[in-house]
Amino acid sequence: MRLAVTMGDPAGIGAEVALKALATPAVIARIEPVLVGDLTVWQETARRLGLGLRPVAGESGTAVGPRALRVAVTSTLAARFCVPGEPRGRAAAKACGEAAYAAILEAVRLVQSGDAAGVVTAPICKAHVVAAGHDFPGHTELLAALAGDVPVRMMMAGPRLRVVLVTIHLRLADVARRLSREAVLETITITAHSLHDRFGIAAPRLAVTGLNPHAGEHGLFGDEELRIIMPAVRTARRRGINVTDPLAADSLFAPAADGAFDAVICMYHDQGLGPFKLLHFADGVNVTLGLPFVRTSPDHGTAFDIAGTGRADPRSMVAAMHMAAELARRRPLRRHMALVRPATTAVS
Amino acid sequence: MRLAVTMGDPAGIGAEVALKALATPAVIARIEPVLVGDLTVWQETARRLGLGLRPVAGESGTAVGPRALRVAVTSTLAARFCVPGEPRGRAAAKACGEAAYAAILEAVRLVQSGDAAGVVTAPICKAHVVAAGHDFPGHTELLAALAGDVPVRMMMAGPRLRVVLVTIHLRLADVARRLSREAVLETITITAHSLHDRFGIAAPRLAVTGLNPHAGEHGLFGDEELRIIMPAVRTARRRGINVTDPLAADSLFAPAADGAFDAVICMYHDQGLGPFKLLHFADGVNVTLGLPFVRTSPDHGTAFDIAGTGRADPRSMVAAMHMAAELARRRPLRRHMALVRPATTAVS
Repeated sequence: MRLAVTMGDPAGIGAEVALKALATPAVIARIEPVLVGDLTVWQETARRLGLGLRPVAGESGTAVGPRALRVAVTSTLAARFCVPGEPRGRAAAKACGEAAYAAILEAVRLVQSGDAAGVVTAPICKAHVVAAGHDFPGHTELLAALAGDVPVRMMMAGPRLRVVLVTIHLRLADVARRLSREAVLETITITAHSLHDRFGIAAPRLAVTGLNPHAGEHGLFGDEELRIIMPAVRTARRRGINVTDPLAADSLFAPAADGAFDAVICMYHDQGLGPFKLLHFADGVNVTLGLPFVRTSPDHGTAFDIAGTGRADPRSMVAAMHMAAELARRRPLRRHMALVRPATTAVS
Repeated sequence: MRLAVTMGDPAGIGAEVALKALATPAVIARIEPVLVGDLTVWQETARRLGLGLRPVAGESGTAVGPRALRVAVTSTLAARFCVPGEPRGRAAAKACGEAAYAAILEAVRLVQSGDAAGVVTAPICKAHVVAAGHDFPGHTELLAALAGDVPVRMMMAGPRLRVVLVTIHLRLADVARRLSREAVLETITITAHSLHDRFGIAAPRLAVTGLNPHAGEHGLFGDEELRIIMPAVRTARRRGINVTDPLAADSLFAPAADGAFDAVICMYHDQGLGPFKLLHFADGVNVTLGLPFVRTSPDHGTAFDIAGTGRADPRSMVAAMHMAAELARRRPLRRHMALVRPATTAVS
């Protein structure tokens, strides 16, 4: 399975966790990586880690020897910008941001041209990418734009729990106001289709949280469950999706982690990610749902403070690579079909 | 250790989980219970469960034989109201509510008179207590009123995690508006003092969550961390309390569960109880902090749907009894002292 693996911010731990992951026998046995980014960053990181891996520049189809990894070169940073750790000064920030950005573009080109079956992205630094003149909230939004402005959702996935968020980086005071039937319904629909098409789950079972404590207790502490979430649930059910009524978010995650549901749709950031990261602190994977291609990412940032020390934990990157390989095995050919009941049944 | 144990709603699972817990050798070896409530409910439940326990009416100091448990009788319900399962009709609701209420009052009297070292309450049904003419939001608020309107907080405690809430049963849309420096500071203070005085932790380490995703990321998604939480933290530190800056609530619980903190102060219901109940679904204990006496409770409701079937899980009640015994071992004699640094230091 060929996957494009971006380096992320050149000053961060991206190349380190990617190479450590690829030095894992179970990973390299399954994945043929195309490393995307700066050749010097990949090679210097490999040299520093001493894992015996050898990144080499190469076009598609280039034969690379044993322990050699093909690099699709998208930047040639000056040596002074290839130093791990938070870069100082605007020129460095801009150079790092531009290099990180260029690698994402190339990875998407590779997957769109069929040269890779999926994309695994290493963490970027938003401030650097903005300094380079590319203003977008994050990876997810950039990828959605590159794919033609498709609606996407962030899923956090681990061995025991999958969580999908309706709203993400909103101040808590705005969450209730910004919640809409359309956003809840779109989240349910994208999640159900992704679980079916990509995760290979024939009949996904979705749980939906309430917005309020005890899911509002029949309107006692808020009515968003009755006004917003429940109508979206009803529409989703009419479309054949198996989804619960809004459930109390405090008692939902234990049964979910024990397998009662294939994913939990949460209304806001901490409601979903608090429980998720408690279970999957080291092995959670960020999966973008809704894209026409597979994209996964480890669940951590650039960690400038430990970059270059060799101490970065590759477990989340290992999980991200395994999951990308798993998801890319399936092609979403029968999109929507199995989930949508016919509106009317003709009897003849 | 003598503990007053209320029956809760007579139609619920309260007496069942209490008697099952008291049939556990480790519990009865440590606790001398005073069962509080309706003699028929206690005796009928004991008969149905067939555990060999024998509730008998008795005043303080009454000698009770082996396997006999003393009951402080606070009601004499008609036989038709001693039936497990949700009662039908207003008269039954009122009778059950009044009986549950009377048991709480007597349990508090027992602990205030020194006849019991702590109170363990079984779940009540708020609607029944209201039907009986006693309108209060819950156990916690009633106990605070009976103790002289002291400020209290709800802690959920388990072997790996302790969570204390600043706000509880508020609609999410109101949480940001209702959060105040005073409420955050009071929560921090009550928690620090309780951990010191009752839990016997010499120098409690408290974590505080932010209100917004990523604790607002320096004001990017909300400024309550800067305006409300941080000033409360600073005041608490001036009073000698070891408490963190507001931390991102999604990455805080894994280290907390691994022992990095003695308690986590959370801003609202689902932020704290989602992670808590994921870890401690069956063995979490509700502890009221701030009362002049010890009070614990299992972390579940009346479960009318399974009352009388013998299927109620006593684990949370077992944990509540153990915790009450543990907390009641310590008397809060040196309240505030060890935590408060002198405002000025006299040098002579």
